[in-house]
Amino acid sequence: MLAALAEPVIHHRARDYRQIYERCLARLRDVYRTQNDVLMFTTSGTGAFESAVANLTSPGDRQLVLSAGNFGERWAGMVQAFGAELIHLRLDWGETPEPDDLRSALAGGDVRVVYLTHSETSTGVVCDVQALASVAREAGAFVVVDGVSSLGAVPLETDAWEIDVVVSGSQKALMCPPGVAFVSVSAAALEAASRAGAPRYVLDWERTRRAQAKLDAPFTPAVSIVRALDVALGLLLDEGLEAAFDRHARLGRACREGAKAMGLELFSPDEERSAVVTAIRSPEGVDATEVVSELRDRFGITIANGQGELKGKIFRIGHIGWFDVFDITTALAAVELVLADAGAEIERGVAVTRALEAWAEHTPV
Amino acid sequence: MLAALAEPVIHHRARDYRQIYERCLARLRDVYRTQNDVLMFTTSGTGAFESAVANLTSPGDRQLVLSAGNFGERWAGMVQAFGAELIHLRLDWGETPEPDDLRSALAGGDVRVVYLTHSETSTGVVCDVQALASVAREAGAFVVVDGVSSLGAVPLETDAWEIDVVVSGSQKALMCPPGVAFVSVSAAALEAASRAGAPRYVLDWERTRRAQAKLDAPFTPAVSIVRALDVALGLLLDEGLEAAFDRHARLGRACREGAKAMGLELFSPDEERSAVVTAIRSPEGVDATEVVSELRDRFGITIANGQGELKGKIFRIGHIGWFDVFDITTALAAVELVLADAGAEIERGVAVTRALEAWAEHTPV
Repeated sequence: MLAALAEPVIHHRARDYRQIYERCLARLRDVYRTQNDVLMFTTSGTGAFESAVANLTSPGDRQLVLSAGNFGERWAGMVQAFGAELIHLRLDWGETPEPDDLRSALAGGDVRVVYLTHSETSTGVVCDVQALASVAREAGAFVVVDGVSSLGAVPLETDAWEIDVVVSGSQKALMCPPGVAFVSVSAAALEAASRAGAPRYVLDWERTRRAQAKLDAPFTPAVSIVRALDVALGLLLDEGLEAAFDRHARLGRACREGAKAMGLELFSPDEERSAVVTAIRSPEGVDATEVVSELRDRFGITIANGQGELKGKIFRIGHIGWFDVFDITTALAAVELVLADAGAEIERGVAVTRALEAWAEHTPV
Repeated sequence: MLAALAEPVIHHRARDYRQIYERCLARLRDVYRTQNDVLMFTTSGTGAFESAVANLTSPGDRQLVLSAGNFGERWAGMVQAFGAELIHLRLDWGETPEPDDLRSALAGGDVRVVYLTHSETSTGVVCDVQALASVAREAGAFVVVDGVSSLGAVPLETDAWEIDVVVSGSQKALMCPPGVAFVSVSAAALEAASRAGAPRYVLDWERTRRAQAKLDAPFTPAVSIVRALDVALGLLLDEGLEAAFDRHARLGRACREGAKAMGLELFSPDEERSAVVTAIRSPEGVDATEVVSELRDRFGITIANGQGELKGKIFRIGHIGWFDVFDITTALAAVELVLADAGAEIERGVAVTRALEAWAEHTPV
């Protein structure tokens, strides 16, 4: 996949590129499990999310953001920046949103758009987006799902769950360098966009849809990234989506069981859906910031600190994309060593074995 | 440079990436010849231009777009999409904008922003942006310059010419794959942005400036492209900007002289500044669309068709970025053969020699 990046840059209106582009768009629809258009933008996942806000908002619209972490907060800020009347259903960071929370918040009526975060990377929580989307649709709202760190890793059925807009990006489960991002858009959402008053140009859905229908891009795309994406989507579909979901669920289980065996306390929920990133509380007296930098400096291993209010309190082990169980055991072994050196009271020598056992327990998702 | 793309993808908050990012931002300021911040976005050149419109517009503002080709038309459409009151100074495609045209158009007073296209890629015209910017500034307007296909190829002095905003992208003279784009922003423009009412999030200047000041990016950047850009900017600065300008001027001259020697009529102006792309009228009875596809299919050589109303009537030979004179002679030789086969009455066997002579006439720019 990285080799694809180093191919000579081709012109985005050349025949070679159009073949790659067409195949990429078809593969994206397969991964999204949708018949809707999947629109491609040269931007970050946040930029693609902004396309949803810009194309569905007229100033003063009532819109609801359900947030329980850093990304949810970002979407709330964005919706306000576009002049919507924000109803902010704000849970504590790390809480798992429940359908009843959303039902109560929607009871005031007349909410036009509901924004949900499927996998909240800052906390490791993966919500039951099917149930939440259903509540939002019953209330007559459009449903926008941030699937940036979930699509391709955990089940997400765009059409079967009737989700109007699913946002994703190239760099997470799609295993590609960052630079392009996508939204699937239902016919009803596309129609609503034609009447939305917020200004937009490069992120305009209709302009992008018209160009894509002719296998054109309205603006110069990141051709190298699209080429790499084509290869990466091929790998994912060859593995099979169900197999990828199963692999992620088992990776999550291995990571949780290994951490618990060491005597650590999980921050993210101890459940199968939590298959994207495992958040772990740093033991008493150990700053997570130190753990993260020790792993980087001593072993070249990347794990993540907590964000915002959780900085220093939790560390996060990612297992999304091109990971296998030995990436998890390596991270666990290094965490074990660094924590022991920092004087934390942890159980030595059991985490890796327990993780491998948990990986082997093949419970179908 | 392409090899840099194939390096493993590094995390955008890792120390390795921050070093590359810092060097890239410093090199960009050198290429821009500015002390202002150069803000980097994961988007196309059009997206970076949109950041200027989004950050400088409140609905109803009077703003002027000077257009004389496809890109100027795009900027006019964008300014309208953002709700400004557009004064559209619209020249014929291929005309070279003169300072007096702009002075008259500004006489109505109270224009807040003037948008100029330095190199209009659709026609090959490079305008005297220094003189035009000076007229705009005398009228008290902010000056925004589309430098997407000029920065690094022809002289563009951001600070010395007091240009508030210069927009550019990675994929033209900066010799890099597309995917990241930039704007330099003067202190006055940044201050004005804080009062501009148009909604924006990923393209917000202040949010980006604050993150860059800490060598952070507000949203996941296209790390692979930034790494390639770092290498490409190093190549450009090693060559030296003046040497690169001289090379582009000589490439343009070689292309024009070769085409004229063949008996072809230039569409772009026969002047030194026209150093980015040479537009040539297709001879009587020959469709430029055919010329372009024959070159591609028979020889694998990419030249461009006319855009919009010029489609089929002109073809364009690009000479921006990593080009030397043999790229020009190759294109001319192939054009000569294809036109002769199409029955056009052209002079055979002189274009390449004349182009090489013109290249050798070293007139300092």
